[in-house]
Amino acid sequence: MTADPPRFGVNYTPRTGWFHSWQDLDLAEVHRDFTALAGLGLDHVRIFGLWPLLQPSRSLIRRSALDDVASVVQVAADCGLQVAVDVLQGHMSSFDFVPAWLTSWHRRNLFTDPLAVAAERELAAAIGAAVAEVGNVFAITAGNETNQFAMPYHPDPQNCSPAEMGDWLDGMVAAPRPALPEAWSLHSFDSAAWFDDRCPVIPAHATTIGEATTVHCWVFTGMTGVCEPGDPLLATLADYQVQLAIGAAADADRPVWLQEIGAPQPWVPADGAARFVADSLQPLLTSPQVFGVTWWCSHDVSRQLVDFPELEHSLGLIDERGEIKPAGRAIAELIASAQDIVRTPRGTAVVFPASDTSTGAGRAVTAPGGPVWRAWQELRAAGTSAALVSSDLADDQHELAARGITDVIRPR
Amino acid sequence: MTADPPRFGVNYTPRTGWFHSWQDLDLAEVHRDFTALAGLGLDHVRIFGLWPLLQPSRSLIRRSALDDVASVVQVAADCGLQVAVDVLQGHMSSFDFVPAWLTSWHRRNLFTDPLAVAAERELAAAIGAAVAEVGNVFAITAGNETNQFAMPYHPDPQNCSPAEMGDWLDGMVAAPRPALPEAWSLHSFDSAAWFDDRCPVIPAHATTIGEATTVHCWVFTGMTGVCEPGDPLLATLADYQVQLAIGAAADADRPVWLQEIGAPQPWVPADGAARFVADSLQPLLTSPQVFGVTWWCSHDVSRQLVDFPELEHSLGLIDERGEIKPAGRAIAELIASAQDIVRTPRGTAVVFPASDTSTGAGRAVTAPGGPVWRAWQELRAAGTSAALVSSDLADDQHELAARGITDVIRPR
Repeated sequence: MTADPPRFGVNYTPRTGWFHSWQDLDLAEVHRDFTALAGLGLDHVRIFGLWPLLQPSRSLIRRSALDDVASVVQVAADCGLQVAVDVLQGHMSSFDFVPAWLTSWHRRNLFTDPLAVAAERELAAAIGAAVAEVGNVFAITAGNETNQFAMPYHPDPQNCSPAEMGDWLDGMVAAPRPALPEAWSLHSFDSAAWFDDRCPVIPAHATTIGEATTVHCWVFTGMTGVCEPGDPLLATLADYQVQLAIGAAADADRPVWLQEIGAPQPWVPADGAARFVADSLQPLLTSPQVFGVTWWCSHDVSRQLVDFPELEHSLGLIDERGEIKPAGRAIAELIASAQDIVRTPRGTAVVFPASDTSTGAGRAVTAPGGPVWRAWQELRAAGTSAALVSSDLADDQHELAARGITDVIRPR
Repeated sequence: MTADPPRFGVNYTPRTGWFHSWQDLDLAEVHRDFTALAGLGLDHVRIFGLWPLLQPSRSLIRRSALDDVASVVQVAADCGLQVAVDVLQGHMSSFDFVPAWLTSWHRRNLFTDPLAVAAERELAAAIGAAVAEVGNVFAITAGNETNQFAMPYHPDPQNCSPAEMGDWLDGMVAAPRPALPEAWSLHSFDSAAWFDDRCPVIPAHATTIGEATTVHCWVFTGMTGVCEPGDPLLATLADYQVQLAIGAAADADRPVWLQEIGAPQPWVPADGAARFVADSLQPLLTSPQVFGVTWWCSHDVSRQLVDFPELEHSLGLIDERGEIKPAGRAIAELIASAQDIVRTPRGTAVVFPASDTSTGAGRAVTAPGGPVWRAWQELRAAGTSAALVSSDLADDQHELAARGITDVIRPR
């Protein structure tokens, strides 16, 4: 299990120019942003290059773009921050950044086309090599929620079976390892991997590929139809997803990283953001497997940039003028008391039916609003913070003991 | 009519890094390339920015990207070259470069969406303003063959009627004029505008919007089904298209600019490229309305870049190592003798049925292989270089006189 105390970081959304700032990289601005973030007590940033800038041709990985990523990593080091680097962006805040060699006349399946996949692995390896020297990169992620490109509701979905996705993820996670042998190499995905049977990233991929399981928690997708905006129940989603990630893993000690969580308006009202931070994070930080939390995001998207979903302009811990917001102060307070967090396994666990390890079929039973969720919430309402555990582990006393589980509840 | 002698230029495809070189702009390399081109006797270059680099957000036109375009224009001036600038790329050599704010989750119709169109006009105006000061920009074009995005065979076609396209072109051509009052402001399109009734850019747009009519001549699209690769007939297409552009314009003196023509393998064998240059250009350069020729392209696309149609690696006047190719020497010879070209109207003209001025319907009758083409070729085979003239002009003796036409041939 991961070490105490939990780690706290932020997904870095540059204050000036959002990710378009890569094209006009100003390290002084990065330093300004990172200094402010370090000042909140955060220990790491997750950073995101843009794919078309890094690899504008299938055969061209720009040296200067790699150097830019490495320079940002160095600035983080100068500010006392560790760094997680994502490779394929890919999808960012409703925008898709896909290079011309994969689109339109050159459309290739980014998950299954052999030439595309080879090029993506080369990029992952090149980014790993570019950032390794600084020494503060603790994780590299294949890309930000790359599963979104394979969802049927995407405007231009890429067909990919769970088996094909597993191969793709294996390759992407393996590629940067030689350059970063000490770092985690991971993948990320939205909650569809946990709750939506149409998603080719399945719980088995989440819990076996890479050194830790990542969790992205967004109430606007996870809680639609379960409760209304403003409901205090929204703040329980993160703990639920984290417990699900712990309970789905065959390895009882597998770390879980809450890699994205944010307080999106109007689901979370502006004056409720600080409380949402504390209410979302405090419960889950006690679980021994929790590596840490990386908040989404560092800075509000500037109003000078348009076409974003409205909520993206208010997700920051810091506003577009550089002022720390209530959510920023709330996370700083949480960090200040993080030494006092007691990591304790939960004795009571709700059993959920294991999903198919080849297809993910059956996973939707764990979605918010379903029977597993209701049983877990009933315990919570009665004062018990429960774990979750997969049905294929729940009959094994060694497995339960390894997790500190003494009571199992089987919802009907 | 345009002044003697005709102008000769080249579409600039940077020798190192193709258009990806904008991201790592090295003005010394541009200077090297332009020096070589000026050495062939060329008087201008046509240059192409990449839209996602210039305008990565609908509300963000990057100052530094505009400065880069202006710097390249300045290097051209330093090398004694004039410049034509294209705004929206858009489509380049099989690749589409479209910013994220117009694709995927943010797909908008680039021709009809009011917010998109407003942003595009802003970019056209901004580019015009950025390059005006140098003083050597003689033309600005809305974009490279932007009609391709509206063709039904495009992988993701944008619906656009001829009327909507006319409005769009009017706006795009008007936008940079205040900044460049002395320059031509134009639009460009492939031969579908002349020959394909599905194309929303119609002959009336070609011959009335902007100060001159542009012609792009590609034998691999224009001559499919008409003759085989290697046929000497291929070299007649450019003259035919130019005569059609002259004969379709109500203004007898409207300049025609052969803005793109290349010698694509295997249609034109490598050892036939030099001859194709001379055979294609010599006939048309005598027409008084011909402003000049801009060859496609300056430099072969490097073999280090992949996924291009094979022919793109051999279209240059100069190869990827900087060696001048036979086609480059051929155009240099043509330029060296350009002073001797006698501009003479053609006394014999083939009448073609006017296409509908609102829809372009009927234009396909002029396509290579059709009755107009055959009549024109028969005259050519008999030793007569004929003009073409639209049926709505052919009964007006003043119109015919203005064009120097004394005999009209009406194909059955």
